[in-house]
Amino acid sequence: MPRASTGESVLSRGIRIIESFDGAHESLSVSEIATRAGLHVATASRLVEELVQHGWLARDPGRRVHLGIHLWEVVTRAAPTRSLREAALPVMEDLRKVMGHHVQLAVLEAAEVLFLERVEAPGAVVNFSRIAERLPAHASSAGLVLLAYASPERQERALVSGLEKFTDATLTDPVSLRRTLAEVRRQGYALLRGHIHEDAAGISVPLRSLDGSVVAALSLIVPNDRAALARVPILQAAALTIARSMAVVAPPSH
Amino acid sequence: MPRASTGESVLSRGIRIIESFDGAHESLSVSEIATRAGLHVATASRLVEELVQHGWLARDPGRRVHLGIHLWEVVTRAAPTRSLREAALPVMEDLRKVMGHHVQLAVLEAAEVLFLERVEAPGAVVNFSRIAERLPAHASSAGLVLLAYASPERQERALVSGLEKFTDATLTDPVSLRRTLAEVRRQGYALLRGHIHEDAAGISVPLRSLDGSVVAALSLIVPNDRAALARVPILQAAALTIARSMAVVAPPSH
Repeated sequence: MPRASTGESVLSRGIRIIESFDGAHESLSVSEIATRAGLHVATASRLVEELVQHGWLARDPGRRVHLGIHLWEVVTRAAPTRSLREAALPVMEDLRKVMGHHVQLAVLEAAEVLFLERVEAPGAVVNFSRIAERLPAHASSAGLVLLAYASPERQERALVSGLEKFTDATLTDPVSLRRTLAEVRRQGYALLRGHIHEDAAGISVPLRSLDGSVVAALSLIVPNDRAALARVPILQAAALTIARSMAVVAPPSH
Repeated sequence: MPRASTGESVLSRGIRIIESFDGAHESLSVSEIATRAGLHVATASRLVEELVQHGWLARDPGRRVHLGIHLWEVVTRAAPTRSLREAALPVMEDLRKVMGHHVQLAVLEAAEVLFLERVEAPGAVVNFSRIAERLPAHASSAGLVLLAYASPERQERALVSGLEKFTDATLTDPVSLRRTLAEVRRQGYALLRGHIHEDAAGISVPLRSLDGSVVAALSLIVPNDRAALARVPILQAAALTIARSMAVVAPPSH
């Protein structure tokens, strides 16, 4: 494979350019791209031009660069999360309508929770997650459910010391976290009160594919009050409904 | 830029590999990828390996390859369509709830309509669109609205002869299409009865950004009956609501 003098392939450099965009950097100048991707401006400029020709990047009238709508199209139409999202979204909307709270769907990526979908309830409690963004697994109810059913190897990689503390309630000690995971497996759900924000509680249940393996977590973000626990059964019923409507779900691979 | 002997860069080959996946080919073997991308199996195999290392592709237990969840994440969090989708989705859900019909949001890509979002009404009329998929602009009400407000150059590129006929009602003649576009501009909406399927009518209105330019079309897919026209005002009101809630919308670039 042709490689530049640094030993990094041109393909990897192109990937770094695409990955220099994120939710806080939806548009960048070529020199900002070069800085963020660690490339010379001339190299970045040539690769940006090539990506623009393919519709993977686009320029606005001020010559700033953003992801091309064609890249969004390519990735969305073949996304491994598509069947899961299509099965889950109508049920998530029903839940939001009935409960009046945020509903979200997440998978585990390394030691983090990646949000595949969320349905917002206007005026409900504060919620830090956004679609395609992440939270540390140890601090969210979705993360604890996903870790509880993950392999021991994946659990060990996530349960390290030095975990971030968001509020006084956040569990950061591996021993307490292991005990919590055992409890989540026994109960079949995770209920975390005030672990990310004091006013909010997260309730999550596992979403299983036809072969019984846990492919995602379905969550409600509710006020941190005494009624939180009473919401577990409706969430479990919703997870079963989604599982039944998934004809074929490709579990996200790692 | 290092180029292989064919004169095509390694980056372009990587792009062709990613683009060999679509809604009908969500998972492929390496040799299927090679065939679809027009590459030697050895070349495809090396590039697939590199893309797997970056999380842009992933292998399932049977060694078939699919898009990596990390690629979905990268593209979704910085997608140029994100602000528009986030502003539109709650209003689209309200419309679906009130009207009981499919609601969709589309932009123009060359001579085709690309669907950014759709909200399904269970049991409503047949609808051929899916998120991130396309329909020819001439045959859909969203396409006619987007063409009606497009530049004369873009209109001319779309209004060519040999346009596909889906039903007896589909307009395929450039002269009639031009007359229809003038009417759409005069009326401010497009109502197409049975142009894609005999039982369905599409109603679309323009969605304008703060500077007044048309950035998308908002559509209802309703039964092809006498009540269709009465649905125009609620759709226009919804488009205005979305426009007002878009703080900053990056219009899709071309």
